[in-house]
Amino acid sequence: MSVTPDEFIALVEEGLPQTADAGLRVEQWQPGAIRLVMPIDHRHGRPGGTVSGPTLFALADLALYGAVLSRIGRVELAVTISMTINFLRRPALTDLAADAKLLKLGKRLAYGEIHLYSIGEPDPIAHVTGTYSIPPNEVS
Amino acid sequence: MSVTPDEFIALVEEGLPQTADAGLRVEQWQPGAIRLVMPIDHRHGRPGGTVSGPTLFALADLALYGAVLSRIGRVELAVTISMTINFLRRPALTDLAADAKLLKLGKRLAYGEIHLYSIGEPDPIAHVTGTYSIPPNEVS
Amino acid sequence: MSVTPDEFIALVEEGLPQTADAGLRVEQWQPGAIRLVMPIDHRHGRPGGTVSGPTLFALADLALYGAVLSRIGRVELAVTISMTINFLRRPALTDLAADAKLLKLGKRLAYGEIHLYSIGEPDPIAHVTGTYSIPPNEVS
Amino acid sequence: MSVTPDEFIALVEEGLPQTADAGLRVEQWQPGAIRLVMPIDHRHGRPGGTVSGPTLFALADLALYGAVLSRIGRVELAVTISMTINFLRRPALTDLAADAKLLKLGKRLAYGEIHLYSIGEPDPIAHVTGTYSIPPNEVS
Repeated sequence: MSVTPDEFIALVEEGLPQTADAGLRVEQWQPGAIRLVMPIDHRHGRPGGTVSGPTLFALADLALYGAVLSRIGRVELAVTISMTINFLRRPALTDLAADAKLLKLGKRLAYGEIHLYSIGEPDPIAHVTGTYSIPPNEVS
Repeated sequence: MSVTPDEFIALVEEGLPQTADAGLRVEQWQPGAIRLVMPIDHRHGRPGGTVSGPTLFALADLALYGAVLSRIGRVELAVTISMTINFLRRPALTDLAADAKLLKLGKRLAYGEIHLYSIGEPDPIAHVTGTYSIPPNEVS
Repeated sequence: MSVTPDEFIALVEEGLPQTADAGLRVEQWQPGAIRLVMPIDHRHGRPGGTVSGPTLFALADLALYGAVLSRIGRVELAVTISMTINFLRRPALTDLAADAKLLKLGKRLAYGEIHLYSIGEPDPIAHVTGTYSIPPNEVS
Repeated sequence: MSVTPDEFIALVEEGLPQTADAGLRVEQWQPGAIRLVMPIDHRHGRPGGTVSGPTLFALADLALYGAVLSRIGRVELAVTISMTINFLRRPALTDLAADAKLLKLGKRLAYGEIHLYSIGEPDPIAHVTGTYSIPPNEVS
């Protein structure tokens, strides 16, 4: 019932033009807890040699989507209803990792948190929480 | 002391590669209350013929940044510390407007809200709140 | 189908022991847009002669609940799923007003915002957003 | 420089009338990571035999305040600037625990998250994030 990491990557690359050539990789994939890695280059930059906020948001959003699909399978109509991002440290313009974990998977709502890291650094650069709405009858 | 709408557009187009060719326009520019308009095409899409979440986030972030700069002038080190986005209605793949309004401008923090609209539609498609940190000595 | 202001006050006073003697009043009651007023005394205080955060949170929560019920009627199982409060200005230990407005009422979710004021002061002391889950079949 | 658990409890009982007789206990107290326990009785209830939202908010707020003070010492002017609470599971009317952890302690801002539990239950009933503002010159 669940999707595989390869199916997840194919799903987001096909569905999201902005992600088609992002080079996303899954580095961990357990039901409800996944790690996504995203290569970063100058296109993701903003003044000061750091990564733009929308880039961080996009990665967190995809990671939480993956965490949801790792539990409920390919439900394309699962949609984000809210996301809160807190920027904690200014990242260098280097590759990023997102650890997403579900804290709740109900019949109608899923909720999780994401810690974003600059790869190789110990402290999170951002902390994100988000809620997904799940269509009726998709989860037993 | 404040920036003009043209200066604001130049600032974000120069500083943010992802925004360089976005075609952003300012439609309203009062101190602490601005309206930004963003052309939308298939590159901003996601399955279902709607606009991707990161696109909405990026527009809201820029609009709040503009609202801050409309009050305090060109302070490039004003940085987002948190943003919360609530997705209310599924937008069509059409141009967007963002109405950003400051609710507080303190010495160290600014806070505001943004209503996002599909142009021509009366109800907001998303509601966003955000907090900016302002460097010391930039606001008297 | 909708509840009246008096029914709303009775509902919260009966159901919530902490609200039984709070002296809440409805000052505005339109479908989806209400104003609640709450008397404040030293029991709501915290150091510095200001109002405690949980008091502000409680008032905002009740105001949004009222705004939901003003549209959908007496649905006791409507439950808060998330609330975000931003503290903007330090209030004096004086009576408070909460203006709650629904931005979305869907079949399953309601979302709104609340501006909190010290009565007589023009600028909001806090801005709150919240999401309610609505039981199936309660809204047509 | 840091406060002790007993000093923290005394501080909140003296300063906050609503907390004076709450019976709060510290069960863990490490720099930046603490556990608070709060006895619950019918006064904290709401319809359905569950705990009211403001009670959960108040406990989370105190726990994060403790986590901040466990690092920076007795800084009474550290103030909450925002809190986001997500309600995940309906708790029984039983005692609660709050695990608060700082994710960032900067010169001007502290940010952390809190997991709330019904004691004895494995899954969190709520997840809270919050930001504190720290007065200048209090943290080196």
